[in-house]
This record gives sequence, structure tokens and C-alpha cells, in this order.
Amino acid sequence: MIKNKIPPAGYIVPAAVVLVGANVKGKPNFNAIGWSVGLEHRPPLVSISSNQIHHNNVGIRENQTFSINIPSEDMVEVTDYCGMKSGRRFDKGSIFDVFYGELKTAPMIKEAPINMECKVIHTVDTTKISSASHGHDIFIGEVVQAYCEEKYLTNGTPDITKVKPMAMGATDRNKLFYYSLGRQLGRAFKIGLSYK
Amino acid sequence: MIKNKIPPAGYIVPAAVVLVGANVKGKPNFNAIGWSVGLEHRPPLVSISSNQIHHNNVGIRENQTFSINIPSEDMVEVTDYCGMKSGRRFDKGSIFDVFYGELKTAPMIKEAPINMECKVIHTVDTTKISSASHGHDIFIGEVVQAYCEEKYLTNGTPDITKVKPMAMGATDRNKLFYYSLGRQLGRAFKIGLSYK
Repeated sequence: MIKNKIPPAGYIVPAAVVLVGANVKGKPNFNAIGWSVGLEHRPPLVSISSNQIHHNNVGIRENQTFSINIPSEDMVEVTDYCGMKSGRRFDKGSIFDVFYGELKTAPMIKEAPINMECKVIHTVDTTKISSASHGHDIFIGEVVQAYCEEKYLTNGTPDITKVKPMAMGATDRNKLFYYSLGRQLGRAFKIGLSYK
Repeated sequence: MIKNKIPPAGYIVPAAVVLVGANVKGKPNFNAIGWSVGLEHRPPLVSISSNQIHHNNVGIRENQTFSINIPSEDMVEVTDYCGMKSGRRFDKGSIFDVFYGELKTAPMIKEAPINMECKVIHTVDTTKISSASHGHDIFIGEVVQAYCEEKYLTNGTPDITKVKPMAMGATDRNKLFYYSLGRQLGRAFKIGLSYK
């Protein structure tokens, strides 16, 4: 087996596809990102990494709040649209049915099956930890409340087979695609028992 | 449409499934985690969040290096096994064909299609940013070199349709499953043009 050296990059696949919401200058704005992740269960901590050139970052830094909205696969077009158009020139708040929760400044998307409103508890500016960085804000947030319609729940929490979220990955360095989820391969903390 | 309040949690789905490698007291150890993510393209920054009770954290803190290995779906059993068994009691280094790269202390798995060796450039201890935290280390790493067999590449970089990585998500709060990727839904930065 020959392991080729390939260009150093973050080949973590697949990536979750989410719409991050922020109030920028008092108006809701949404951006599609592939760099969001869970960090801890209790308290529920999550993070997003967002380029400092993004309009969203202005609002998140000002309000210290943001939302994470999980679009279903039938929202692929509007999700990609949100990733292509800048909130500086396009009013992306007007294309969704927007609602607010406890934080008042974290706009959420009714059409998206799962919504999390988050309070920023820590920010890492990548230019402060890497001299080569082009500048991203890693916003670490605590989920203060989450929302979901009944039809997407099983036993009170979201069911991935009902939500039908999207995953993202590249077929080569220049071609990035959205994917649906496929078949169930096994249950975590169970199927490992079959390994001998 | 009625949006129910649901228990606050990090419902970011799907999650990538990776095997994190570390040298602990001079021996390779691997743990399966669902909390890894990209942060920035240039330089290539990634992060993992790992509970401080894990054996891996000892080695990562000592060497300031770790690896991220992307298992393919046919490695579901051994991947789950690595997430179930602690490196304190089980020699998980011996179940893989292990190799080392430029960092010398970040063990990688030959059987896994993609390998990234990472140098820690910053660590966030969640107990320092949240008084309610049970304690996770968020290790932010720069990918110094990546590796992949020819058969998984298209135009020199990994092809997700050849790698066949796993995704993870819950059907309810108590049932977590591994999934394969399904059908292509559209190309990023393209299909959004169809949104009117």
C-alpha cells in the first residue's frame, strides 16, 4: 500500500451543512457554512468558523449571539444561494419565515427542521493563533434553546431520518457537492461489539 | 407551523466520524469521535473536541500533535470498537497498521483512506470558558501533511465518492447511528443559481 503525500488540507468528510443566522445592523442575515460542530453535551456547546469578511460576523460580534439552522435536503437550492450571496448586497432575511427566541437577536428559520439559538461564550480569532491565517472567527456558543416541529421528532428529540439533513464533500479539490444520507450502517456503541 | 421547544443540545447533523490518533506514553492510541471540523483553508486548520477523561488527551497535551484518520464505511465495526474501548485498558494501536509522518508523534492508520497529521497551535479548555463545563479539550491543529492512496484520489485530492466516509446522527436522544452517504443533491456554489 502506497500512501501518497497530498496537499495539506482539512479533509474531514462529510461536513454538516448549516445556515447560520445573525442580526446585522438590526436585520436578520443567514449564511451557509460547512464548518460547524458539537463540542460538549453538558452544557451544550457548539462552534462555527466563519471568515471575517462575512457580513454575519459583524452581527455576531455585536450581539454575541447567533443561530444554527439545519436545512433539510429539499432546501438545497436556497441553502446554496445563501452561501453564494453576500448579506451586504442581498436581503437574505426576507427569503425565509424568520422567528426569534429567548435571546431576541438570533434570527431563526421556520422552514429549517432544527433551530438552535446560541450565546457566544468564547471567540478565537485565528489571526491571533496563526501568523499565516487569513482571518476566521471561531465562535463557541452555548445552545440556550432549540426548536423543532413535532413531525421531525422521535421520543422528543430530532430524528435524523425525518429531518433529512445534508452532508457536504469534494470529489476533487475544485468540486464540492451536497449529499443526502444513505443507508444505516450500524448503531454506535453497539456494532463495535461485532469486532473481534 | 408549531415549533416545539426541545432540550437544548448540539443537534448539528450529520457529524463526520473520524479516528483521532495520539501517542500516549510512547504508544499509539486511537479514539473515534464525532466532533471534528475544518476551520480555515489557508493555513489548513482543523479542530477536535475530546473529553478530558480520554486517554488520547494525555498524549496530545504532551506531544502537541495528533492525527485525524477518515475511516471508510467498511470500517464501521472497528471504528465503533475504538469509540467503546479505553486506551487505558486496550491496546488499540495494535489493531491497525500504524505509520508516522513528519511530526514523528502523530500515529496514523494505513487502513483509513485519508490521514492528516496535525500540530496543535491552540487549545481551549472548556472549563476555562464555561463554569458548567464537565471538561473537554478543544485542540486546534494545523495539518502539516496529509496522505491518501492513489485509488481514492481524483485530480490529486481525495474523492468523497471513492473514500466512502461515514456520517453520524441520532434517531432520538438515545440512539445514535452510522450512515453511508446517499445521492448527490447538487454542486455547491452552482445549484443556488436555480433558486429564484
